[in-house]
Parts: sequence; C-alpha cells; structure tokens
Amino acid sequence: MDAFIVSIGTELVTGQCLDTNAAWLSGEFARSGIGVLGHITVGDDTERVAAAICQAAAEAELVVVTGGIGPTPDDVTRESLATAIGQPLELNPEALAGIEALFARWQRPMDDANRIQAMIPRGCGVIPNERGTAPGIQAQFDGTVVIVLPGVPAEMKAMFRQAVATVLADEAGGNSIATGRLNCFGISESKVGELLSDLMQRSRNPQVGTTATEGTISVRVTARGATPDAAQRLLAADLAEAQVRLGRAVYGVDDQSLQASVAGLLLQHGKTVATAESCTGGLLARRLTDVSGSSAFFHRGYVTYSNESKSELLGVPCEMIEAEGAVSEAVASAMAVGCRTSAGTDYALSITGIAGPTGGLPPDKPVGLVYLGLASADGVIVKRLLAGEHLTRSQIRDRGSKAALNLLRHSLLELGSS
Amino acid sequence: MDAFIVSIGTELVTGQCLDTNAAWLSGEFARSGIGVLGHITVGDDTERVAAAICQAAAEAELVVVTGGIGPTPDDVTRESLATAIGQPLELNPEALAGIEALFARWQRPMDDANRIQAMIPRGCGVIPNERGTAPGIQAQFDGTVVIVLPGVPAEMKAMFRQAVATVLADEAGGNSIATGRLNCFGISESKVGELLSDLMQRSRNPQVGTTATEGTISVRVTARGATPDAAQRLLAADLAEAQVRLGRAVYGVDDQSLQASVAGLLLQHGKTVATAESCTGGLLARRLTDVSGSSAFFHRGYVTYSNESKSELLGVPCEMIEAEGAVSEAVASAMAVGCRTSAGTDYALSITGIAGPTGGLPPDKPVGLVYLGLASADGVIVKRLLAGEHLTRSQIRDRGSKAALNLLRHSLLELGSS
Repeated sequence: MDAFIVSIGTELVTGQCLDTNAAWLSGEFARSGIGVLGHITVGDDTERVAAAICQAAAEAELVVVTGGIGPTPDDVTRESLATAIGQPLELNPEALAGIEALFARWQRPMDDANRIQAMIPRGCGVIPNERGTAPGIQAQFDGTVVIVLPGVPAEMKAMFRQAVATVLADEAGGNSIATGRLNCFGISESKVGELLSDLMQRSRNPQVGTTATEGTISVRVTARGATPDAAQRLLAADLAEAQVRLGRAVYGVDDQSLQASVAGLLLQHGKTVATAESCTGGLLARRLTDVSGSSAFFHRGYVTYSNESKSELLGVPCEMIEAEGAVSEAVASAMAVGCRTSAGTDYALSITGIAGPTGGLPPDKPVGLVYLGLASADGVIVKRLLAGEHLTRSQIRDRGSKAALNLLRHSLLELGSS
Repeated sequence: MDAFIVSIGTELVTGQCLDTNAAWLSGEFARSGIGVLGHITVGDDTERVAAAICQAAAEAELVVVTGGIGPTPDDVTRESLATAIGQPLELNPEALAGIEALFARWQRPMDDANRIQAMIPRGCGVIPNERGTAPGIQAQFDGTVVIVLPGVPAEMKAMFRQAVATVLADEAGGNSIATGRLNCFGISESKVGELLSDLMQRSRNPQVGTTATEGTISVRVTARGATPDAAQRLLAADLAEAQVRLGRAVYGVDDQSLQASVAGLLLQHGKTVATAESCTGGLLARRLTDVSGSSAFFHRGYVTYSNESKSELLGVPCEMIEAEGAVSEAVASAMAVGCRTSAGTDYALSITGIAGPTGGLPPDKPVGLVYLGLASADGVIVKRLLAGEHLTRSQIRDRGSKAALNLLRHSLLELGSS
C-alpha cells in the first residue's frame, strides 16, 4: 500500500512556517511499512487544494491531507474536498455534536463560526478531535481513502494515531505491524551497521534501519506478522538481539531523550548531580532540567566562563590555568572536583572547550577540542573529545553537552540495578 | 511571476529528514514578491523526479529543484532532468573544471565518482558551487526556467543567492526589488498591525507584512523600483518609518537574534552581565554565550535550582524563600542583587518561575508564572510574566529567557549612544 501526503496552507508556500507534519507522517508510514510516493504543498486556494487532492488520489491508495479545516474564511479544505469528490457540503450532526461537547467541556460559549467546521461532504465519515474544534474527515474516492486532519501538529498527531491506525490495520489484510526504536550515543552509524549487518538485510522481516541525527544513532525495527502477537514477538526478539550487540551504546527506546535516560538513572539510584560549564555556557544544565521533576536530582550548576570564576567558584588554581590553559585535562578535572565539593552532590560534570569559530590554537588546541570531567566518590575521570572543525559552534556545544551526559550515564550503569 | 519548488530525496518521503529547503526558498521568493504556487516532494526515483519536474514546469514560469545531484547511484536528478527536457546527458567541460578546481583547492585527489557530477543535459547552463562538488544546472523548458540546486542547505542557499537572483532580476523586466526585516520583541502581532496598518495595505509598494515566531514578531518590507537605487530608497523610507512607530520594540534587522542585539549593546557600552537562573536552568546563560566572543561581557552564571543554592550562592535569605515562595517578586529581586554582588558585574539578570507541566499552584502561582530581575548600579527592577498555560515547558523557558534578555536590552538602550 502506498500513501501520498497533501499539506495545505498559505503560510507553508510563503515560507512563514516549516511543514513538520509531512515529515512526521512520512516517518509514521515508513515505520508501518507503507511507502510514501510524495508530498504536495499548496496554499489556501480552493481550486489548487481540490487539484492536489485529485492528483494524490490518482497516485496512491491512501491520501492524508493536513490543514485548512479551521473556522475562518481562508480555510478551504472542506469545500475543496467536496469539489474533488463531487459531493455537496452539509451540516453533519455527529461533527456538530463533537464540537458542542468540546465547548461544553471547556465551559466556553461556542462561536457561530465554529458551526462551519461541522460542514462535511455528504457520505464522509467524521474523525473526532479531542483537542481542538476541527473534526477530521474520512472520504472514499475511486478506491482511495482520503483522510483530512487539522494542521495543528498536536491535534494532527493524536487524530492520526486513532484514525489512520484503523485504516492501516484494515488495509493490511490481516497483517499486523509492530515497530520499535533503540537510541544510541557514543557509537558511529557505520559501527552500528557492522554490528547489525545480518539483521539489516533488505529482504528480512523484521526490517532494521539506522538514522543519524546530531550525534545520536537510532535503530528502527519494523516487524510484520499474521497477528499482532506474532508481529510483537518478532519485534521483541530483534530489539533484544540488537540491544545485546549494541550494549551500553543504547541509551533509550522510542522517543526517549538522552537527558531523560540520565534523569531516570539518577532517580532510580537516588543520586544527585551538579554541573560546571565553560564552553557550553549553560546548555548541559538546561538539558538536565528539560525534564519535569529534575529538582529531585539537580540542585545547582555553575557557568564558569572566565578563568577568575573557575578559580573563585570551583577552586581551580590560577597557576594551573596559566600553566595548562583553561581548555586542558587538568582544568576539566579540577572543575569537576571543585564543583562536587561545593555543591555537595554525588556526581559533578565539567566541560571546558573551544566552541569556535574563533579561539582555536591548532595543532594542539583546535576549534572543537572539548574536555569533559566527571567527579564522584570514586575520584575523577576526564575524557577528551575532538568534535571536528566542520561542525558549527552550536553543534560543538551540542555534542559536548551530550557527551557529558553520556559519561554520567555510563557511570550510573556501573551501579547496576540496585 | 510564479514559482514551484521540487524537493528530491528518499530521506524526505520516509520522514528521516525534514525539508527545510522548500520553506527557505518560499520565504526568499515571498520577500522578492514571487508567488509560490506549491511544493512537491518525491524520492530518488528517476521517473517520479522527471514527472515532478514536468508538472512543476507546466504550472509555473520558474522551477527550483533541490537534491539528488550528488555522486552516488541514488542521485537521479541529472538523469531525470535530461528525460524531462528531452536532451541527452553529456560531460560538461565547465562543470568538470569547476569540480577539479575545488579538489585542487582542498588539496585532495578527486574521486572518479565525482566526474558523474559534471554530466549535464545538453544545452543547459552550469551554476558554480563554491562549497561542494555538485554544480547546479539551469535549463529552459517550454518557457519555464528550471534551476537545479544541491540538497545540502548551506550549498543550496549560497548558490540560490548568486544564480536565482540574476534570473529574478532578468525576469522582473528591469524592475528591482529590495527587501528588509525588522525584528521585535515585547509587542503583540496585533499591536504591530495596528501601528503599521496604513503601511500594510495590500496594494501598496513597498509591501509590509508581519510574522510571529516563538514570541518574536518580524516586520518584512519588500520594495519595487525601476532601478536598484529607487527600490532601496523606498525600502529605507519604510524601514525608517516602521522603526519610528515601533520604537524600542525593534531589537534588530534581518537575521539578527535578540541575544546578538544584547551582545552588541553590551560590547558597545563596555558593560558586563551575570545570570542567576532557576526555572530556565541555564538557557539564559546559553543564549548569552551563543555569540562568539561573549567572554568579553559574560564571565559567569549561576543555575540555582534548589532553595539552598539560592541562599548559599546568591545570599537570598531562607526566611524570604519560606515566606514568599521561591517564585516571587522578592526572591527574583534578591537573586539579581546577590548575583551582581557575587559576580562583580555591571548587570545581573535573574529568573524564577514555574515551567510546568507540574508544580503550579493556581490561582496565585499557575504554571507559566515567571519573575525576572535586573540589578544594576541604579538598583533592581522586577518584572512579572504570565506565559500562559497553553505553552509547553520548553516554550515557557524560551519566553522567560527572551524576556530577560529584552529587559536588559531596554536598560542598555537607556544609556544612549555614548
């Protein structure tokens, strides 16, 4: 089964807004083993939207349209769909009841303009929207299923999961699909490919693929089976095998972030961490506090950008900075130890490096050189990173803060599952 | 003149990669007064790419194609363009010379595979690529200009500016276009619309429009004139008029960020700043250090997440935190004053708030409540923000850190242009 995605919105064709929906939908389809033949994007123009829907329906058996079903006059998708399938728009009682129920739940009066959102082409199904006023629409059109969803990403995603999942299961003719993902850090994509080469053969079921994004490598597994249980069993076996081979390079599954994984380990072991950052300027602390509830393990961080602040707040000797330079193994080590003492935490992470684009002194201290320190009751370890000159300032800071989180993660894994 | 954008890449239709090129190109066209009729995205499939090029060329007078011109077998755009325009591929000496010159500059041997990138459909022009091995292609096709650019955003943007700008100027029949942008913070889009309503009338030249993105409002001005000078004069007059009406809400022009604007003011006046953050967890310090060379004005920051660290590092009295709560005007004020004293800087910014999603205590202390403090030689000021419960944790932290930068910006503007 193939799909085509139609994105509607003048804000998309004027570049005021980035279309993340088409990419998200494409990823969902890929993970379900559905091929996406293409995306087409048009502005809020009745004729162009109708033409785009017809074109997509001619190409694929499943079309997902997003956007243009709001309550204002520039929302033309309902009318365009009616034109495309040759049915009149009519007030749909089920859609109206859904919108009225939402306003009742919100305890707000319903605007007359919202009634227009209950105008659905005759014969089409309504997809309930729990998070917004725009119901989705499901149409049949010359053997193609056309599904219209809102453009607001959060509403679109929630509705996709409940509506399209059913269509996919129906269309799969009894075949069930189960998908999963392992996220890795501190390993190259080619090394992952080497370790999983037999699992990644194209003709195999499950299918296993990798994606590299800003230093993290994701392993995606898509399993097909005659029943949901069979697909799940195949998926679980592959995920377990990949996990064994990749070992501690795997930090999480599905949407789990590196910081969420570290937060989970800190909470599990009842440990605390503090940070002392130079080149990352607060990014590491921000990552650790991305997670709601982080106050249980994170109490303080120091951004010691100047040499003076490294000495004053963390007790790094001035003479050491002068002799070794602020970007050095010795200073990273002293920063971590001083931070742990001052903060009174179980762990302290330090980062000092050259984020560039200026300030590099090759060959010894090029842009991209970063030292990470981790102090604990067991002492201190320091890791040297060379992020590479082709990376931007922002990427060097990104990789440095992730590598620091990963260093702490490995240390927490040593504690075992106590 | 209308344009159509074609994006090529299997990574786009499988959702492994977000297509930012189409949005960027759309924005460039919109600013040049060129309407974009649509985008179409297809995978690396010879027939589908050829069909997409034909469709786009049938609709618009200018087609920009990005992607699929690398050296590997899955790069099929050259071949597809040749099919679409009915011309054979042939080795283009100009293109080959450009690729060879690039490898010579890099002092690296050229791979045989790179020769394939010099295969260009007969009769087409070559667009030099200064940053990569893939030359661009310019074709004429039934009255439409088709321009093929690499998919790598940095290469694509550099080539667009040099190649398409010429086409646009030619096609504009002697009309020149000049564009500019003012960036605002701390003002609503509707207020900007009110202040500029006469300038924003649709039929007017220059055209003036607004875009809201994560709390910042951009005012875009596009001027047309018989000569470049005439267009520039119209642009300058509108930018000056908008600047007068919007006053200090304007923080920068074109691509300038809020942090770059604050950094510029700090450097101009030779002032320093330190930060004391609770809910933003290091994000404010990270923003201030986004700018290369920030060590001239930023020496240290404190992430005081726990109450204890607020007392210990910033001298906020424990009794005050107990009586008023950590998220309060008094604590924000004491954090800023304590931070300035400890850091010995001209300014200190503090942030304390409830980023959520948990931890809110409505009605007095809901999620999204943020207090900002700014200490200087003149004393301390505190600002209360209510970011709104519909925002996510990450958005509340984003708005809080931007509002703190803006508070400092206003204070620096009071210093005048000394």
